[in-house]
Amino acid sequence: MLVKTVNGHTQVIGEGWHQKPGLAHAEVNAIQNAKTNGHDPQGATAYVTLEPCSHVGKTPPCAQGLIEAGVSKVICAMTDPNPQVSGRGIEMLRESGVTVECGLMESEALALNPGFVKRMNAGLPRVTAKIAVSVDGRTAMASGESQWITGPEARAQVQRLRAQSGAVITGSGTVLYDNPSMNVRDTTMLGDPYFEQPIRVVVDSKHQVTPNAKIFQGQGQCWLVSASKRDDTFNNKVLVQQVKANDAGYADLEALLRQLAESGVNDVLIEAGSELLGAFLAKGLVDELQVFMAPKLLGSAARAMAHLPFEQMSQAIELELKDVRQIGQDLQLTYNRVD
Amino acid sequence: MLVKTVNGHTQVIGEGWHQKPGLAHAEVNAIQNAKTNGHDPQGATAYVTLEPCSHVGKTPPCAQGLIEAGVSKVICAMTDPNPQVSGRGIEMLRESGVTVECGLMESEALALNPGFVKRMNAGLPRVTAKIAVSVDGRTAMASGESQWITGPEARAQVQRLRAQSGAVITGSGTVLYDNPSMNVRDTTMLGDPYFEQPIRVVVDSKHQVTPNAKIFQGQGQCWLVSASKRDDTFNNKVLVQQVKANDAGYADLEALLRQLAESGVNDVLIEAGSELLGAFLAKGLVDELQVFMAPKLLGSAARAMAHLPFEQMSQAIELELKDVRQIGQDLQLTYNRVD
Repeated sequence: MLVKTVNGHTQVIGEGWHQKPGLAHAEVNAIQNAKTNGHDPQGATAYVTLEPCSHVGKTPPCAQGLIEAGVSKVICAMTDPNPQVSGRGIEMLRESGVTVECGLMESEALALNPGFVKRMNAGLPRVTAKIAVSVDGRTAMASGESQWITGPEARAQVQRLRAQSGAVITGSGTVLYDNPSMNVRDTTMLGDPYFEQPIRVVVDSKHQVTPNAKIFQGQGQCWLVSASKRDDTFNNKVLVQQVKANDAGYADLEALLRQLAESGVNDVLIEAGSELLGAFLAKGLVDELQVFMAPKLLGSAARAMAHLPFEQMSQAIELELKDVRQIGQDLQLTYNRVD
Repeated sequence: MLVKTVNGHTQVIGEGWHQKPGLAHAEVNAIQNAKTNGHDPQGATAYVTLEPCSHVGKTPPCAQGLIEAGVSKVICAMTDPNPQVSGRGIEMLRESGVTVECGLMESEALALNPGFVKRMNAGLPRVTAKIAVSVDGRTAMASGESQWITGPEARAQVQRLRAQSGAVITGSGTVLYDNPSMNVRDTTMLGDPYFEQPIRVVVDSKHQVTPNAKIFQGQGQCWLVSASKRDDTFNNKVLVQQVKANDAGYADLEALLRQLAESGVNDVLIEAGSELLGAFLAKGLVDELQVFMAPKLLGSAARAMAHLPFEQMSQAIELELKDVRQIGQDLQLTYNRVD
C-alpha cells in the first residue's frame, strides 16, 4: 500500500498484492496501481507485510523497484523469514537513502502465512491433518464401511482446506479402498483465475496403487511416493518420487515433506487412514489437527482414528485446543501440536 | 408467585418455591410469604409452573390451600406430567370457582425439570452419562493407567453434575480398579442446607465388590445391585438391591432405573467404565451424553469410550449435539439421544 500527502491530504495512492507464485510481487503491483490512478509514487511511503525482496527470482527485486519509483519510506511488518536473505532488502533500501522501519503488526503478518514462514524457517511445509470421526473417535466400521460419517457442510469445509493447501497427502490404503479423487470440486474456488489444484501425493511404499486410480485423473499434478524404484508406468501428470527409506524400509515422511517444501509447497493437508496419519503424528510432523466430529457412536469394534500403539500415558500426544465451531450437525475442532 | 392489585398498583405480594421433597410446595410458601409481607392473598392471581396438586402426599393438597387462601385466579405453565393425576388439581380449583388457565410458557416449564417430567411420564429417571475421553475417544491406557485425563475445571463440573443427580451409577470394575468416593465434595454445594448426597449405586452382578470400598464410606445412601442374592454383609448405609436378571444373568439395567424412579429419583448420572456404559447405551437408556474431551491422543491401544461391538454402520448410535463449551483446556460436549 502506497500512502502520500497530496494537496494537504494524506491518502492511499496505490494498492497491490501478490496473486500467485511467478506473478509480480505486491510492491510492483502497488506502484503500477498508483500510476494507473494518476499518482506519482515519488516521495510516498510504502506499507508492506514482508520485507521487500533483494534478489532476482521469478520476478525482479522489489527493493530496486521501490527505489526506482522514488518511494522515500518503507514500513514493513516483518523481515524475510528466510534466514539467508533476511535483512538484505532493507539494507538495499537504506543504502539508497530510503527510510525503513520494521515490526509494525509483526505478529499479525506472521500469522497471515504460517506455512510460508515455516517453510522458510524450517525447510518444511506447515502440516494440517484432517480427520472425520465419531464422538468415540472412530472413522469407519472394521469392515471398512465408512462413507459420509460427517455431513455436507463439513465436507464443503474440507474442500476449502484442500484449496488452501499446496499438496494433499494420502496413503495407498485410502486409494485402494475408497478410491477418492481428492481434488477441489467447489465451483467458486475453481472459478478463481489464480486457483490451482493442490498436488495430490500418494504414499505407496508397497507399490500397490495402479494407474487407473481416480486420484490420478482430473486436473493437477500428482506425486506417487515410495522408498524404492518402481517399474509400473503412470500418466504424465504423475511424478514418481523416490524418497529415502526409514528404518522399516518405507518412505521417510519427513524427507517427503522436505521434498514438498523444496518444490515450493507451504501448506500440506493430510487426508489419510489410521496407519499413515498415525505415522505422521508419531513423528511429530503434524502442526495442526482438524477433527470433524459427527454426532454418532460407531462403537468399540470400529476403526481407530490414528494408529498410535501407546502403552503408557507418558507417550500420549498433548495438543492445544485452538478453535471449536459447529458446522452443520458436526463439530470442527482445531488442535495444535504442543512442542 | 402471587400477584394482586393493591391501591391501584398491580404487584407481586408473595413468592415461594419447593425447596426439597417432604417440605412445603411452592404455593403454600408463596401464601405464607404474602402474609409475612402483610398482604392478604384474597382475590390474588397465582402464577405457578406446575398444576397445583390435589392429593395428600408428603404435604397437604396445594389446590385446597389456594382455595382456602381466597386466590381467585391460577395461571399454571403445565399440567401435572403424571397421567394419573393430571388435571385433577385444575378440576378441584374450578369446582371452587377459581379461574384457571394453563400453558403459559409451557415448554420453558417442561425444560425446568426434565427428570421429574420423564419419571412421571415414563416411570424412569432421566439418565445422563458422563465420560472423560481423549480426542481419539479413549478413557485410559490398556493397562488401566488413567487418572486425571481432564483438567480441574472439568472435574469441578462433574461435581456439579453429581450434585444435580439423585443417584450416581457405577460398575464393579470402576470400584475395584479406581476405588472412587464418587460423592459431592464441593464445599459450596455441601453448604446448601437442602443439599443431599446422591445415592451411589454400584452394579455388581458378579459380587466382586467388598465392604471396604471407598464408595461405601462417607455421607449418603448406597445401593449395591445384582440379579442374585448375596451373602456378604455391608454397613447400614448400603442397601443391597436385587433386580431382575437380563438374558446374560446380569442385573437388568432398565429394571434398576425403574427401581430408582420408584424411590423418587428423577435424575441419574452414569459414571462407569466401557462395559457398563456400553450396556446402558446399547439398550437406549441414556438420554444425555456429557463428553469431557481432553486435548490429547491416548492412541489406538488405549481403552474404548464405550463397549459397543457394532459391525455395521446401521448399528451406529445417532446423537444430537445440544451444547459445546470450553472448560479449562477441555471441551464439554453435550449430546442427546435421537429417538
